Amino acid sequence: MIKPHGSDTLKPLFVYDPIKHRDLLHEAESLPSLMLNSAAAANAVMLGAGYFNPLTGYMNAADAMTVAEHMKTTDGLFWPVPVLNLTNNIETVKGHRRIALRDPNVEEHPILAVMDVQDVEEFSDHEIDFIAEKVFRTLDPAHAGVATFKSLGKYAVSGPIQVLSFSYFQTEFPDTFRTAVEIRNEIAERGWKKVVAFQTRNPMHLAHEELCKMGMKAVGADGVVIHMLLGRLKKGDIPAPVRDAAIRKMVELYFPPNSAMVTGYGFDMLYAGPREAVLHAVFRQNMGATHFIIGRDHAGVGDYYGAFDAQTIFDQEVPKGALQIEIFNADHTAWSKKLNKVVMMRDVPDHTKEDFVLLSGTKVREMLGQGIAPPPEFSRPEVAKILMEYYQKEVAGKA
Amino acid sequence: MIKPHGSDTLKPLFVYDPIKHRDLLHEAESLPSLMLNSAAAANAVMLGAGYFNPLTGYMNAADAMTVAEHMKTTDGLFWPVPVLNLTNNIETVKGHRRIALRDPNVEEHPILAVMDVQDVEEFSDHEIDFIAEKVFRTLDPAHAGVATFKSLGKYAVSGPIQVLSFSYFQTEFPDTFRTAVEIRNEIAERGWKKVVAFQTRNPMHLAHEELCKMGMKAVGADGVVIHMLLGRLKKGDIPAPVRDAAIRKMVELYFPPNSAMVTGYGFDMLYAGPREAVLHAVFRQNMGATHFIIGRDHAGVGDYYGAFDAQTIFDQEVPKGALQIEIFNADHTAWSKKLNKVVMMRDVPDHTKEDFVLLSGTKVREMLGQGIAPPPEFSRPEVAKILMEYYQKEVAGKA
Repeated sequence: MIKPHGSDTLKPLFVYDPIKHRDLLHEAESLPSLMLNSAAAANAVMLGAGYFNPLTGYMNAADAMTVAEHMKTTDGLFWPVPVLNLTNNIETVKGHRRIALRDPNVEEHPILAVMDVQDVEEFSDHEIDFIAEKVFRTLDPAHAGVATFKSLGKYAVSGPIQVLSFSYFQTEFPDTFRTAVEIRNEIAERGWKKVVAFQTRNPMHLAHEELCKMGMKAVGADGVVIHMLLGRLKKGDIPAPVRDAAIRKMVELYFPPNSAMVTGYGFDMLYAGPREAVLHAVFRQNMGATHFIIGRDHAGVGDYYGAFDAQTIFDQEVPKGALQIEIFNADHTAWSKKLNKVVMMRDVPDHTKEDFVLLSGTKVREMLGQGIAPPPEFSRPEVAKILMEYYQKEVAGKA
Repeated sequence: MIKPHGSDTLKPLFVYDPIKHRDLLHEAESLPSLMLNSAAAANAVMLGAGYFNPLTGYMNAADAMTVAEHMKTTDGLFWPVPVLNLTNNIETVKGHRRIALRDPNVEEHPILAVMDVQDVEEFSDHEIDFIAEKVFRTLDPAHAGVATFKSLGKYAVSGPIQVLSFSYFQTEFPDTFRTAVEIRNEIAERGWKKVVAFQTRNPMHLAHEELCKMGMKAVGADGVVIHMLLGRLKKGDIPAPVRDAAIRKMVELYFPPNSAMVTGYGFDMLYAGPREAVLHAVFRQNMGATHFIIGRDHAGVGDYYGAFDAQTIFDQEVPKGALQIEIFNADHTAWSKKLNKVVMMRDVPDHTKEDFVLLSGTKVREMLGQGIAPPPEFSRPEVAKILMEYYQKEVAGKA
């Protein structure tokens, strides 16, 4: 099996031993506590679940700077994006060596982790900008990732953590959330050697299904791990249970037995495009995938990144041998009316836009809400049915 | 795929919709609340996870009585053991139609479920005894199950529930706890048609491994779901992560690819022997297993049940067609020195005790603690290694 990034075995920071877990929770109740921001909380969940192996906690300023500039820590570990605990509320932290980290995303803010504080360092505005510019390739305050990052705080509270919960991800998505440990275990159980990981936040239509199959075929994979980004519902989002049911129906009907796993993980989108694509690859290696599908505009937003920047970064900036996982570079896929099948757009340079069956997200949602199934060249009818039932209820609910 | 018990699709009582979940939790905060006993809390988790399909909540007195006597509800649903919410604290409940149920097993007692109270009924001592005698086949107060049952309370608070958490099972066993929904999903993904379920609370030695394989072979199964009873550590128990690692190593090395799943569920042992075996079969059907292995003394305690009562009950008391899942009746298995393989004891009537490689649990733990691997006829060396590492640390810790 492919090794985790940076170590021989996976070392998740979640405290699995129930006695130790209980004792730590008790101890934490009497520790000074810091309310995390959402980004730091998301990092804790990823560290706890083994996805950020081999990191042992939040980076200090020096590591963050060198990771931002060179994609490696001061110890030489390859890592694409600083993993920070930024705050402005250092009063409760100052002078303490051990603190409790509280979860901003769960009511009553339970303890998410216990931290041994090694440093509390202030970033200058110049340093914050330096990191943002390296990670996001822009300082445009209109870039959602930059705006968020610059709002998190000036102080980096760094040191190892022991994670005590998976925040709301495990409780709100009980059938879908998976740790990297679990996915590794299941890959081993299934006997898969070559494993493609596929990132999604949305229901999968025919083009996505075929993209997975193209990736699997190209690399000779035994299976695909469909790995959904889980998070709180935002306006216009389809609820996770509906999305999951639609994806599971697709797997049941259109994938050979034992060739697809439907799973999810909890993190915040950074919108860091290329750098985020590399981070995505790192944590897919940690969960045991040997290959990762990266398409157009992976993890991008607006027009900040070139369509294939999230692919070329692997050739141009990731040192050879830094990662074991391999990238399957993809383009958009869509049904070709000329060829009567789903194709990857780059493979049909003679096609014009009119040669494809393309529907905007808005258009698809509109159709589904009216009970009109998208054409079978776009959606599997059984998948469309599940989505239609949801959108029609939505429409009825609003009427 | 095999249908759940009593309905066409699984209807878990967990509230998956995050908005509804949040709203219910908010509402529950202002409802009168009842602290559950551990047995009722375990029932709520099983109801939430879909294992107790198609029940919609806790049974009333009439259902409990007829289930105890005839293994069916007043509506005619086959069900082997009353699913009750017993209490003596009815002051907070009386006169309220909707209450919050609090979790006795998690600190600060968070809300486990919201209940629409349909009835609060007092059982007479005679009725309590009637139920206990039917379920446990004894009224001996020295029987752990009887003792527990009789201590739970005289009032049955009945009605449908909506479940809001999986108690500590999901948080303390994040890589192993599975809902019936998840196991069904995974069986579908793996493409298994015939699926054997195997109940365990302990690490699996060679005899258990071979028992699973015998069951699989006998019924022509595509796979086995190793389904571990999860619970808080008791004295002498091996911690779940160690047990899991040992079982996973066995699966990795000694089961063909895609033929075994390692999973767990959260419940309390009832020690009801035959009746509990039937309940075990019901919830294995709900998770999608087509066959269930029942061995000697399944779910028994002491000498209250005959060695094969948990098998004969299926022939003698479970009406034909009441369950879809089939039982694989097993006997103890052990290595035969005469035949040089693991055999089922009933298949070798010529053997005496001396013809088998048998080691008591105490003896095995002692050996492991001293760093002595049990013989390969008893334990897979790679499994023994994981257990030895744990027991030696235990010994060192105590020294």
